Amino acid sequence: MTTPASPATSSSSKDSKTGHFLAEKATVDRAVIAPLPASRKVYIEGSRADIRVPMREITQTPTTTSDTPEENPPLLVYDTSGLYTDPSAEIDIRKGLPALRRAWIDERQDTEQLERLSSEYGQRRAADPLLAALQFELKRLPRRAKAGRNVTQLHYARQGIITPEMEYIALRENQQRQQLRSQHAEHEMAHQHPGQSFGAAIPDDITPEFVRQEVARGRAIIPANINHPELEPMIIGRNFLVKINGNLGNSALSSSIEEEVDKMTWGIRWGADTIMDLSTGKNIHETREWIVRNSPVPIGTVPLYQALEKVKGVAEDLTWELFRDTLIEQAEQGVDYFTIHAGVRLHHVPLTAERTTGIVSRGGSIIAKWCLAHHQESFLYTHFEEICEIMKAYDVSFSLGDGLRPGSIRDANDEAQFAELETLGELTQIAWRHDVQVMIEGPGHVPMQLIRENMTKQLECCDEAPFYTLGPLVTDIAPGYDHITSAIGAAQIGWYGCAMLCYVTPKEHLGLPNKDDVKTGIITYKIAAHAADLAKGHPAAQRRDNALSKARFEFRWEDQFNLGLDPDTARAFHDETLPKESAKVAHFCSMCGPKFCSMKITQEVRDRYSQKALKRQAEQRDEGMREQAQRFKQEGSELYKEV
Amino acid sequence: MTTPASPATSSSSKDSKTGHFLAEKATVDRAVIAPLPASRKVYIEGSRADIRVPMREITQTPTTTSDTPEENPPLLVYDTSGLYTDPSAEIDIRKGLPALRRAWIDERQDTEQLERLSSEYGQRRAADPLLAALQFELKRLPRRAKAGRNVTQLHYARQGIITPEMEYIALRENQQRQQLRSQHAEHEMAHQHPGQSFGAAIPDDITPEFVRQEVARGRAIIPANINHPELEPMIIGRNFLVKINGNLGNSALSSSIEEEVDKMTWGIRWGADTIMDLSTGKNIHETREWIVRNSPVPIGTVPLYQALEKVKGVAEDLTWELFRDTLIEQAEQGVDYFTIHAGVRLHHVPLTAERTTGIVSRGGSIIAKWCLAHHQESFLYTHFEEICEIMKAYDVSFSLGDGLRPGSIRDANDEAQFAELETLGELTQIAWRHDVQVMIEGPGHVPMQLIRENMTKQLECCDEAPFYTLGPLVTDIAPGYDHITSAIGAAQIGWYGCAMLCYVTPKEHLGLPNKDDVKTGIITYKIAAHAADLAKGHPAAQRRDNALSKARFEFRWEDQFNLGLDPDTARAFHDETLPKESAKVAHFCSMCGPKFCSMKITQEVRDRYSQKALKRQAEQRDEGMREQAQRFKQEGSELYKEV
Repeated sequence: MTTPASPATSSSSKDSKTGHFLAEKATVDRAVIAPLPASRKVYIEGSRADIRVPMREITQTPTTTSDTPEENPPLLVYDTSGLYTDPSAEIDIRKGLPALRRAWIDERQDTEQLERLSSEYGQRRAADPLLAALQFELKRLPRRAKAGRNVTQLHYARQGIITPEMEYIALRENQQRQQLRSQHAEHEMAHQHPGQSFGAAIPDDITPEFVRQEVARGRAIIPANINHPELEPMIIGRNFLVKINGNLGNSALSSSIEEEVDKMTWGIRWGADTIMDLSTGKNIHETREWIVRNSPVPIGTVPLYQALEKVKGVAEDLTWELFRDTLIEQAEQGVDYFTIHAGVRLHHVPLTAERTTGIVSRGGSIIAKWCLAHHQESFLYTHFEEICEIMKAYDVSFSLGDGLRPGSIRDANDEAQFAELETLGELTQIAWRHDVQVMIEGPGHVPMQLIRENMTKQLECCDEAPFYTLGPLVTDIAPGYDHITSAIGAAQIGWYGCAMLCYVTPKEHLGLPNKDDVKTGIITYKIAAHAADLAKGHPAAQRRDNALSKARFEFRWEDQFNLGLDPDTARAFHDETLPKESAKVAHFCSMCGPKFCSMKITQEVRDRYSQKALKRQAEQRDEGMREQAQRFKQEGSELYKEV
Repeated sequence: MTTPASPATSSSSKDSKTGHFLAEKATVDRAVIAPLPASRKVYIEGSRADIRVPMREITQTPTTTSDTPEENPPLLVYDTSGLYTDPSAEIDIRKGLPALRRAWIDERQDTEQLERLSSEYGQRRAADPLLAALQFELKRLPRRAKAGRNVTQLHYARQGIITPEMEYIALRENQQRQQLRSQHAEHEMAHQHPGQSFGAAIPDDITPEFVRQEVARGRAIIPANINHPELEPMIIGRNFLVKINGNLGNSALSSSIEEEVDKMTWGIRWGADTIMDLSTGKNIHETREWIVRNSPVPIGTVPLYQALEKVKGVAEDLTWELFRDTLIEQAEQGVDYFTIHAGVRLHHVPLTAERTTGIVSRGGSIIAKWCLAHHQESFLYTHFEEICEIMKAYDVSFSLGDGLRPGSIRDANDEAQFAELETLGELTQIAWRHDVQVMIEGPGHVPMQLIRENMTKQLECCDEAPFYTLGPLVTDIAPGYDHITSAIGAAQIGWYGCAMLCYVTPKEHLGLPNKDDVKTGIITYKIAAHAADLAKGHPAAQRRDNALSKARFEFRWEDQFNLGLDPDTARAFHDETLPKESAKVAHFCSMCGPKFCSMKITQEVRDRYSQKALKRQAEQRDEGMREQAQRFKQEGSELYKEV
């Protein structure tokens, strides 16, 4: 494990100017590049010098409440924030992030650099002088698989190859569990409740070989387009940490490129494992380029949205040729996964007729309209194998869209939804025959008692391909609070086996989220994902809970804030009533005040009546608690005498 | 069902002044007394003129998206807000609410009016001229059961008596289901998914006799002190709607009487079914009086807190006599349920020694300290039968406190917790022998996979006495967001059978909640409770979801806001990006814009391709969906031709 070599500031190039309006404003918010409080970036090194896995190390203060002051070890946490929180990195969003995977891709010698963009649309945009001011100045040309080659991680995995990406992921997921286990074998911090895994099989240690096996089995995917070498590899699968996705993107009514890049860096700061760019407004192509070049996490898109923009919103005018060009355009920009609504079949559409909320997937409704207008199956379905050919030439993963997901509690788990899921299962098999990675999108709106059925059916229909759900929202009656209605469902489906949870912000159903909404959505979903990891019994998941609880009990206020998902908010809430620095070491807060703080009283009890004696007592409890207590009462045991 | 006779304003007496500083400021926030948007107070009449059960009726606008405009029936919802939202009521918090149960209590002829307060402390406070400025001017004297009589609802229920309280509750819980069933038999709004009840037995209709049976069985309680005649009766039990409690109260460091009354009226506006006054600061007695006199919902307290104040925070100095006087003092003020930590036994205390967070219940820690200091069982345990005698003289219900609940994920479901639960089961049987009503408090902090065990053990140990839990929080890593970490657990335990959920606000663990925090906590818990009702299959629970979803799909924006739990926030979020009134009838929002609104596209599909034909098709699907679709494709069915 290494730490950054130099503490150089990251804002060195932020004040320089160019003639471009975007470049002029192309700074990153100072709030995004500051390390989180008491945190530093550390790197776990792999088998080769260029495998350096970033983690965040949170420092703790010593315990001073007990007789013998005790050090509290730093806590290592999974870190999605990329170089933005590394003070030694130079951040300049006009240059993008360094291409850390470049050598790995080159070494495989199965790709070639193209002489120019392949897509007609991409070429046209690049050549348009009116767009110069918006364009990201990428110096390198895109890559593609050599003729006849397949460059997916699934393809490598099935050949028994452990890629650097797989090793990177193993180190990242493992979080040095083994080392910490031996350090803390006797330590209470190591304690964890047994999980209930619903058939997940999470090993004690995540090895590169385990990663390879899971990918080969199709049970996990590594979204990692060869044209997104800036990516820090991550994995999505039920036997790994539950991941979360944050959506962003402008619409015709709102937002600019800069705002979207800003939302991306903000989202990953708080824990987004992937980002979907769902832009549907102006300059989608250019917005995406800026996002991909600056993103250390996988980027997903719904190519249909851009295709529809190209035909000015007239769904009937969509064609396979246009769509195909859009796939290639986006694949060459480096998009890591595509939502493809190929499961919406012509004969499914009538099944939605009696629904309360019809079709609520944007992609699903567009495809349904197209199918009916043309009286035929969608080009996504009829050209699915050609799509696979494109996916494997760049290693874009499928996120098979649930175009017919329920949009209300009323429509949950209906025939339309499950009919589409069966089709998605068939498409999964086809994609797998092409060695293309697949995950499956899921609902939506589902009351609690029907959530489990979703997970079970998905595992069955799709042969354990990773599930990626939106929520689900467990009730429809709280617009303005759908981050909460959906986190309740998300935590449950994550527990049952869902691999990635797509966040929902408080603005859902009402408007486009702003930066605050993005943060609220991300933190809410980190809670859901972590609750699921705990419930499944993911090894070491409870370590952070244990550390925070211990800090709380010992009135280490700063540690309590810093170990939490959002130190800034925790500190601000505390300071609202007790702003003074002295209150940060006080043995109470304004919630109960000093006399009524139960933890203070417990400490006093322990101080006074000897915790050791209490402990000894507890250890002997096997003899039979009741009997024993009876005896103590009769004998007037030492235990109850003051020390 | 009746509506208020006159639309008189409620603020008539708000500007008059008296010499008292409190009375001068004794107004209620205008935001609290305004009816919610598109809502009016209606009353369901019972078998006698003075049984008038308040409900809120939300009016909807007609559907205009389909060919034939269609009326949308008003929706009736459970209403906890009391007279504050009745424009015909005169609200003056210096006078308190009218004593609507007075006649019912008098008619039973088993109580007598006292000539003065019985508690020594109550007398002293009443006589103190320095407190005059703080005192609520109650004109009536307290009542108590006549010698040898038992005035609990449980006592009546076991004798086969259906009290007016029980009838009131039946009407309130039933929400006119029968009538609505026949009205909407064919209507899609009637549709509801089957529930999974985990052994709950919720009938199709709630009758007064069913209420009586459930109370007699001990499976539900009606907290209704005879000295709180202002109360609108409600019930807590697993076969009724899941309830929520909001805590308020000052601490030594924060808040005034007026603020607490304000939080109470604010809390019930948003849906608090009961309020606990957990004040530990100055003037607890007077604060409580103001709250009870102005509260239409049951008030709970932890008498131990005030007792500890009386001994200046020195736990060891507490005595049975002092505690007994406090119980009587509070019972005569009208407190409806008491949290009593009688389950903390001396021999349980060592079981907490190895915990990460020791004892986190304030009451539990106080009692543990007392027990150890005196080397004996607590006076709560040793005098439990005498406490029962007091409870039955006023009909105060027990909320048996879980003094040893876990305060961290690490400590969940441990021996200390379950040992206390067994004691609570024994105490339940004793209380029941006295015909005293009982509910049981529960944790706390529990990871998802261990929640079910809590509910199962509680039902077993306590013979189905209602469970009342705080959350539980499913992870410890998100201080600042514990309303969310706990709502995830609350929704689940509510589904499994918990009868009431105690809210947690965003300030939990960090400070005392302000008014905004109270609202956020209440709405979050309304979500959890409703999600549980849906999952259990509570009849008619889904009606509100269905209505809101339909409004959403039909772009009835105002209806969508108004049918939600918090119309103000929903409207504000929408207006952030599209503030114009015209946007309230637009067939899109800023989230997707007009071209990408899936619901708009679905509407277009239905308009264009004849929803009738689509429906017919869907009805014929029994023949075999796949086969049929095949046939359509071959035959070029009418279905897919434009109309």
